[in-house]
Amino acid sequence: MLNLKGSVTTPKGFRVAATAAGIKKNQQLDLMLLVADTTATAAGVFTKNRCQAAPVLFSKEQLQKSGGYATAILCNSGNANCLTSDGATVSQATAAKVADALQISPEHVLVASTGVIGVPLPAQPIIEQVEDLSTQLNTADGAIAAQAIMTTDTYAKHASVTFTYNGHTASIGAIAKGSGMIHPNMGTMLSFITTDVAIAPDLLQAALLEATETSFNQISVDGDMSTNDTVFLLASGKAGWTVQDDGAVQAFQEALTTLMIHLAKSIAGDGEGAEHLIVCKVLGADTLTNARTLAKAVISSNLLKCAVHGHDANWGRILSAAGQTGIALPLDTLHLSLGTMGTEVTLFQHGTAQPFDEAFASQMLGQPVVTIQLNLGQGDANAEAYGCDLSAEYVKINADYRS
Amino acid sequence: MLNLKGSVTTPKGFRVAATAAGIKKNQQLDLMLLVADTTATAAGVFTKNRCQAAPVLFSKEQLQKSGGYATAILCNSGNANCLTSDGATVSQATAAKVADALQISPEHVLVASTGVIGVPLPAQPIIEQVEDLSTQLNTADGAIAAQAIMTTDTYAKHASVTFTYNGHTASIGAIAKGSGMIHPNMGTMLSFITTDVAIAPDLLQAALLEATETSFNQISVDGDMSTNDTVFLLASGKAGWTVQDDGAVQAFQEALTTLMIHLAKSIAGDGEGAEHLIVCKVLGADTLTNARTLAKAVISSNLLKCAVHGHDANWGRILSAAGQTGIALPLDTLHLSLGTMGTEVTLFQHGTAQPFDEAFASQMLGQPVVTIQLNLGQGDANAEAYGCDLSAEYVKINADYRS
Repeated sequence: MLNLKGSVTTPKGFRVAATAAGIKKNQQLDLMLLVADTTATAAGVFTKNRCQAAPVLFSKEQLQKSGGYATAILCNSGNANCLTSDGATVSQATAAKVADALQISPEHVLVASTGVIGVPLPAQPIIEQVEDLSTQLNTADGAIAAQAIMTTDTYAKHASVTFTYNGHTASIGAIAKGSGMIHPNMGTMLSFITTDVAIAPDLLQAALLEATETSFNQISVDGDMSTNDTVFLLASGKAGWTVQDDGAVQAFQEALTTLMIHLAKSIAGDGEGAEHLIVCKVLGADTLTNARTLAKAVISSNLLKCAVHGHDANWGRILSAAGQTGIALPLDTLHLSLGTMGTEVTLFQHGTAQPFDEAFASQMLGQPVVTIQLNLGQGDANAEAYGCDLSAEYVKINADYRS
Repeated sequence: MLNLKGSVTTPKGFRVAATAAGIKKNQQLDLMLLVADTTATAAGVFTKNRCQAAPVLFSKEQLQKSGGYATAILCNSGNANCLTSDGATVSQATAAKVADALQISPEHVLVASTGVIGVPLPAQPIIEQVEDLSTQLNTADGAIAAQAIMTTDTYAKHASVTFTYNGHTASIGAIAKGSGMIHPNMGTMLSFITTDVAIAPDLLQAALLEATETSFNQISVDGDMSTNDTVFLLASGKAGWTVQDDGAVQAFQEALTTLMIHLAKSIAGDGEGAEHLIVCKVLGADTLTNARTLAKAVISSNLLKCAVHGHDANWGRILSAAGQTGIALPLDTLHLSLGTMGTEVTLFQHGTAQPFDEAFASQMLGQPVVTIQLNLGQGDANAEAYGCDLSAEYVKINADYRS
């Protein structure tokens, strides 16, 4: 179902264009325009950081004004447009230019930025490119659009899913960039998602929120939440059917969640300096909230991240990280293992440490994907979280940039 | 007031002894016994981690049983006595041996451990040393006792304060070990504090809790909370006066807090791989809780820790870290600076970034103590938190130990 060559232009009714506006050095792609053929239903989720960048504040307001509709998304990389005095004016002016060039309502333009904080983003270089971008819109350059929103990602992230319900078929496509902090103060999770189903704004927003909870909200690269995190989801309706009844909503939700979890894993595994994707599966918790909190606490522990980096099966760090959440750990029923069924190493059960083959465990920790499974044996709530190892390279990237 | 040569034997009525019981390699000191000449009033605070080591569970129960009295503290380093099947038995047996050797009530012995998690701690090597330790108790070896509880600390941490009230004089002395994680799963904050005032158990416990909030609870080395963190405070009464009225309680509280903040700074600055102590002062917050939370969020940010390590004045990371707390940041009145009065570099005020001399700021970040000051200009609540930089050496220490 998952198509790794797909992107935001896989669903019908969307076109993109990208260019180098000179915000990044060396003529790198840094500006992208995504446009729906007609007004699309739109949903958005944003960072919860109390320092919010100008494009976050602006786009939130746009979605409120329009009641959940949008036609275009303009995104620059290389500058976060955050904590400067004229940020709001820049978001406003660049969005107005897009509306003008495309002859659409000004409130139907969303904007996003990612890059350095506290450095003024000049509006002029962006405005100068918008006219050209609007004439170059096409359905072939989805992967190029993914490249234009990258900062320190090592590869462009895009994919799509196709799903069917009751004889109807539709697609959901996305591009995303990672939360690695390559540049000082750089680092934002952005994802733009499109679909060709028709769907009401409130259903679209609910589906996006639900999928975000199990995907992007379960990622951690370094525990630092960006000022610019933004996810947009646009629905064009061009597939010719409407997601409305419960069965259709469920089919759409499942497809959307599958796609977003794939992107979440890509982002976590491509964290700065990372060599491993760490997946923590928590099973048998009493509530979903507890399962999610425990999984995220494990993959967020600096000590565990260092241990994985060193291929060292220091399982005490896993339970210690879980215990820090304040959630009761039933040591008698708890089962902790490394790996997945088939090649699983049990580390702790029946209330005590289990003997295991250190060399084999270390070998498993050497794999690109490291899976930690914590079964509480308490209830039936399960959750996963996605992180990466902590390397000396991460410190180097984030300490040495300007010195 | 602060005496850096002082320790737990500076207040009258306490003796110590330390030895190498073979828990650590190479005949390093790893066992310490601290004894009050007569039964002391006792208070304790413990880790909030839901995985609690056997000595934590045991000592909590001891303090409950005795109603806040104790005579001896036995502490080993090199093994946390945590998450193994016979941990409770080991704590129980070693404490019983101490009670027997000193001819004191079994419920007046507290124990603490620090070291690797999940490896059984043998009781026998400890029991064999207790008799000798009990005959070697003296008032000269306070610094040696501090050495015996170290794991990866680079130096032994001990100090004392003397304070006066209404013509009376008394002392408070302490030893502590850091939260650096030198060994896999090693890392515990321990501190044992003594005083020669007389004081009721409830007043002692309240004073300890209050001082802990502004000192040890405001430290972070790597965000990982240990399974073994323990602070004990014993009062011998040998100074010949009782802390009872409000003025005396306040004088005692101030002296205790001064001592504990000193130890907290020592622990943070000696974090694993650290080259800098980072002090974040939050001023002008609307509530004390918000001030503490903001200060701790800043010094806990991996990105900020990397920036300090690289002497890079990436102030956006400070505001971003503060914003993650969810506490509203009044950007218009907020004033962010580096350094303290006299040599202060303003980074952000009047709602926008301020121009500053990068070279001078970088020089300030090269100092052993880096002070960040965040004045919200909102209310009159102030707080501090203490952290350290994140270095490649930290990753090396925590990744490469067993590989």
